[in-house]
Amino acid sequence: MLQATASVIIALAMGLVGVWYVLWQFKQVLSQDQGNEKMRAIASAIQEGASAFLNREYRVIGIFVVIVAIVIATFLQWQTAMSFVIGAMASAGAGYLGMYVAVRANVRTAAAASEGLHQGLRVAFGSGAIMGMSVVSFSLIGMTLLYLYFSGNPNQLTYITGFGFGASSIALFARVGGGIFTKAADVGADLVGKVEQGIPEDDPRNPAVIADNVGDNVGDVAGMGADLFESYSSSIIAAATLGAAVSTQTASFIGLPFLVAAVGIVASLFGIYMVIGGEGSIRLPAFITTRLDKHIHKIVENASLQDLLHALRGSVWGASAVILALSLVVVLLSPSVSFNYWLVILVGLVAGNGIAYVTEYYTSYTEKPTQSISNACQTGPATTIIQGMAVGMMSTVFPVLITAVAILISIWLGHKADGTITAGLYAVALAGVGMLSTLGVTLATDAYGPVADNAGGIAEMSHLPKEVRQRTDALDSLGNTTAATGKGFAIGSAVLTALALLAAYITAAKIDTLSILGPTMLPGILIGAMLPYLFSALTMSAVGKAAYNIVLEVRRQFKEIPGLMEGTGKPDYAACVGISTEGALKEMIIPGSMAVVVPIVVGSVLGKEALAGLLIGTTASGFLLAVMMANAGGAWDNAKKWIETGQFGGKGSDAHKAAVVGDTVGDPFKDTSGPSLNILIKLMSIVSLVFATSFGSGWFSF
Amino acid sequence: MLQATASVIIALAMGLVGVWYVLWQFKQVLSQDQGNEKMRAIASAIQEGASAFLNREYRVIGIFVVIVAIVIATFLQWQTAMSFVIGAMASAGAGYLGMYVAVRANVRTAAAASEGLHQGLRVAFGSGAIMGMSVVSFSLIGMTLLYLYFSGNPNQLTYITGFGFGASSIALFARVGGGIFTKAADVGADLVGKVEQGIPEDDPRNPAVIADNVGDNVGDVAGMGADLFESYSSSIIAAATLGAAVSTQTASFIGLPFLVAAVGIVASLFGIYMVIGGEGSIRLPAFITTRLDKHIHKIVENASLQDLLHALRGSVWGASAVILALSLVVVLLSPSVSFNYWLVILVGLVAGNGIAYVTEYYTSYTEKPTQSISNACQTGPATTIIQGMAVGMMSTVFPVLITAVAILISIWLGHKADGTITAGLYAVALAGVGMLSTLGVTLATDAYGPVADNAGGIAEMSHLPKEVRQRTDALDSLGNTTAATGKGFAIGSAVLTALALLAAYITAAKIDTLSILGPTMLPGILIGAMLPYLFSALTMSAVGKAAYNIVLEVRRQFKEIPGLMEGTGKPDYAACVGISTEGALKEMIIPGSMAVVVPIVVGSVLGKEALAGLLIGTTASGFLLAVMMANAGGAWDNAKKWIETGQFGGKGSDAHKAAVVGDTVGDPFKDTSGPSLNILIKLMSIVSLVFATSFGSGWFSF
Repeated sequence: MLQATASVIIALAMGLVGVWYVLWQFKQVLSQDQGNEKMRAIASAIQEGASAFLNREYRVIGIFVVIVAIVIATFLQWQTAMSFVIGAMASAGAGYLGMYVAVRANVRTAAAASEGLHQGLRVAFGSGAIMGMSVVSFSLIGMTLLYLYFSGNPNQLTYITGFGFGASSIALFARVGGGIFTKAADVGADLVGKVEQGIPEDDPRNPAVIADNVGDNVGDVAGMGADLFESYSSSIIAAATLGAAVSTQTASFIGLPFLVAAVGIVASLFGIYMVIGGEGSIRLPAFITTRLDKHIHKIVENASLQDLLHALRGSVWGASAVILALSLVVVLLSPSVSFNYWLVILVGLVAGNGIAYVTEYYTSYTEKPTQSISNACQTGPATTIIQGMAVGMMSTVFPVLITAVAILISIWLGHKADGTITAGLYAVALAGVGMLSTLGVTLATDAYGPVADNAGGIAEMSHLPKEVRQRTDALDSLGNTTAATGKGFAIGSAVLTALALLAAYITAAKIDTLSILGPTMLPGILIGAMLPYLFSALTMSAVGKAAYNIVLEVRRQFKEIPGLMEGTGKPDYAACVGISTEGALKEMIIPGSMAVVVPIVVGSVLGKEALAGLLIGTTASGFLLAVMMANAGGAWDNAKKWIETGQFGGKGSDAHKAAVVGDTVGDPFKDTSGPSLNILIKLMSIVSLVFATSFGSGWFSF
Repeated sequence: MLQATASVIIALAMGLVGVWYVLWQFKQVLSQDQGNEKMRAIASAIQEGASAFLNREYRVIGIFVVIVAIVIATFLQWQTAMSFVIGAMASAGAGYLGMYVAVRANVRTAAAASEGLHQGLRVAFGSGAIMGMSVVSFSLIGMTLLYLYFSGNPNQLTYITGFGFGASSIALFARVGGGIFTKAADVGADLVGKVEQGIPEDDPRNPAVIADNVGDNVGDVAGMGADLFESYSSSIIAAATLGAAVSTQTASFIGLPFLVAAVGIVASLFGIYMVIGGEGSIRLPAFITTRLDKHIHKIVENASLQDLLHALRGSVWGASAVILALSLVVVLLSPSVSFNYWLVILVGLVAGNGIAYVTEYYTSYTEKPTQSISNACQTGPATTIIQGMAVGMMSTVFPVLITAVAILISIWLGHKADGTITAGLYAVALAGVGMLSTLGVTLATDAYGPVADNAGGIAEMSHLPKEVRQRTDALDSLGNTTAATGKGFAIGSAVLTALALLAAYITAAKIDTLSILGPTMLPGILIGAMLPYLFSALTMSAVGKAAYNIVLEVRRQFKEIPGLMEGTGKPDYAACVGISTEGALKEMIIPGSMAVVVPIVVGSVLGKEALAGLLIGTTASGFLLAVMMANAGGAWDNAKKWIETGQFGGKGSDAHKAAVVGDTVGDPFKDTSGPSLNILIKLMSIVSLVFATSFGSGWFSF
């Protein structure tokens, strides 16, 4: 195990490098100008709302974590419980830090955008980079420390699955709670503000406007961060667990995913540098910086939107190139690890980017699918919805084929190299690690979006010059495009991770033959396939209920607070934040607990084979539903934006009204239910893995 | 095999009894009064449109059937090809007959409704009974004759799978083509007629009105009939095929499904008698008829809607009681067949009725779920759609649990009885047979609905007194309620049949161990889960395209035909029927062929194990999507009707407008894409079974 330990120590070291970068970038962002008095006041309202929500959310999650930790310690081992708590804390810590910066970077982005597009991007992207790098470093440090702490114990890896479980729990509540919060606030603010009172978006007179801005951060920064924290951790855990069974040379196979993650941190930092670069940043050897600075300078000077998009894309591609080069070295240096495993990492990266590309194709308004929805808007909201559903359904085809082919090739490569199916499944897990190895930078391109969105809101509310708002809008729309990448990686990695965890579960539960026609398998698969539907039904209804309460509150304030409409009365922002928080926390309990309780119940009652069926059913069905909902939602959103560019009568036309209906339907699809399904499938898998040894053959065994 | 042959002969005899009843009932319906001149003229336009569509549809299907028959004869055996052609012809024949009567019963129902509610019901239900009984008898006669013809051949049962394949092919095109036709005509007629020109529904000035009425029959009579013809045939074939492997006493096990079907014909006739009864009908022993006639007389005299609903429900329950009694006798008399198999039949019946009950609960406007959609209509179309989706998703929970439990209990009972998993899977197939054993009457309660709907249209167009329209409306709304039963049985039986076929496929393909972690299994499952989404995307887009062409044509006619709006010009009904036909036939080719081609491609390229995965994925994912779409569609439809009863502002209110959007979105959900998925999952399974022996381990085997 010596070589494994060495790899883990390298990973730990790189995690510390990541933390060092996070601290440095943190100082950079906070040292930026915060703009005028008015901007600061608005920003501080958002900061208060965000921290109020997070504090209350973490308190609820805290109770959950304590209960589950006690259950684990009682029925399994205290070591797993300890890992569970640490996993939860690491994920929560990364989420908290990311949010803390995001709600401070927004106002600084608005101020920087007064100078120029690239100045704004640098601040917003810096904030996203903090989120991205905290996620990967905190995860890596947590896992490696636990690995070293349990060193020598034969159950070393089993204990660490608890870390993934802890991270999953945070992810679930962050995604579901955050998703409900953000959409309830958004829909509530729009329904009364825009529709009933006829005031524009982001108008400071709207009592729900702060809740709406808080929501952007809660959902897209903390939620997405926790989601990918979980995928990242679980894919490494799954790979390491399976690695222990690949061949007799386990040390290399356990160490490999840690090493890939370690060099991924280097690659991510490189990618981030390609966007932010310039003065004061990390010192790289001159022969690199001269070339890079040239690239960056071009951006700074002519900074058109197209250039920025190229810069962001370039950074992801650059990071990918670095990871491929470095992981080749790693694979070649690892004793008894076949070259095939480098190809597997390549497959993971290509698949992730492939899914991202397809996602962008189906949701971007420059492409046919979204335009077909805009076109259908002309014949009213019904055809808008039908066409959007059709596009969403159609958009599942290539992500599924890409994933299926990636799994097939990975299994094949692994099997070729080491001659066992376990090696093949290890390869699937490793492909997931490869896909997520550049997470530090891909998450940055995603998490900066809400910061820009918030900056726009602040610019609007504090009446900054029009060109500032235009710049933040440009950054925001750029963020919408790159967000597609994030979503593609999120769902693709969720599926690979879930399957790798499933394989690890089957090994851990000591299921020898798992026939598809086993007596409890088919019922398990059917029930599993149903859970994503139940889960989505619950989360969608939750948004509706919470939004309804916001509507009532906003209406009340407009009626009861004198001079609110005229701008002389002061709206009670905190009340709306409170209602969103309340609703989100209340409504996240049932779907959240479901994900933990159902696998345990099914495993106990129907047995461990039925549970395997359940996981397969949930993974397949959840994957499809998640992609469909996310892409339909994205496409509706952009179909509206396409009309707003002046197509089919532009803003205010009947087509636009139909498009707004589509957009509103799409909101919970793409920001609540769809992304929450990623977590559902991963969490159910890791719960099963953690409790694997407790399940027998169930009550119906014969 | 002697006892099996005897059972088959009994089944054949009962099939002939069914045909005798069909002919008798046929004469009864056609001898009814056809009403006045105007009514006849409208009816004959519908008749012409329907036969024009069916003739063209059957011509296209004919080409498909010939090509596939040649492929089967070339690559497999001529006997299978022959069974395939006969299966296709039997299904097409039943569909043609059912349609032929339905488009003649509509005008007679309108005429009879002038006398009273029950008079109208008797004519319409008589027409439905012809459809129901043709389906079961034609299926049973076809299969039994083939069985006897191939008698002595060891591949006897293998050949007969071709019959199921033939029936499936017809079903697919009838469902998909019919579904596209009916919704294109419906949406097209409404968009121009009601919305643009402001003329009421079923107005004879609307050029698409005849196409709309034709569509009701094409979709709900021919489409539903072919769907259940296929389930009925395939469940018997699957049970017989698995029966041959249960124990050494195969004769009893092969014979049992045929015997259950045979006594099912008796039960169905009894159920039909309970609704229609009275003078001139089948003579039953006096001690039964006196009691029944008393029951029926009560209906005839006070005929309220509630009474009629009781009559229809009573007939299904009565038939279920009879089948349980008779199949108990059958099971007890079958040598070496355990009592457990009677329990399995009971499980099937209970599950079918359970799913039907849940379907009704989620889609009926007297219940909370649908009312919650009506409630959401108050805040506009977006919340209407979100709530409808949530209800549709939630409505999947119990059908899945019921099916899962039914499978679990069936496998357990079969395994207990004969000690093998095969016996358990045989029991699953038998549960499917039990669920469908009363199909003759359950289909009648479903297929009479469109006749009543058409009758209403004819009453409207020929300006019959208001109370006639009220009566036909009552019959129609009764039909909507009972249609839920039909849909519940259709999807429930589709899943059981598909799983039984899957089990038969795995046996036939000689797959020994089918591990869930086999190299190609996971990709197979994922791709399989994706197909229902692709299929639904294609069929939904098809409706949109075809409806758009109808809109253009109707607009053209209003513009170009002088005096059309004033009622002096004559609309060109045939042109709209032609466009719907054209669109439906063109658009059904790709999704239809997909269902046949994909299993063959996957089986050849990825191998027979991947194909098993594919089938599981499609069955699970398709089941969920089908239930969700069908129930969301039904709930939206009835949420609108609930508002039309005066709730939330009634007709013309903003809530009503939002409800209309929901209803329009629901149309392709519930009448095109949703029900077509039933066929997709069955057809893919049976294609796999037919070609089972041709597949190897694929290109990726290692």
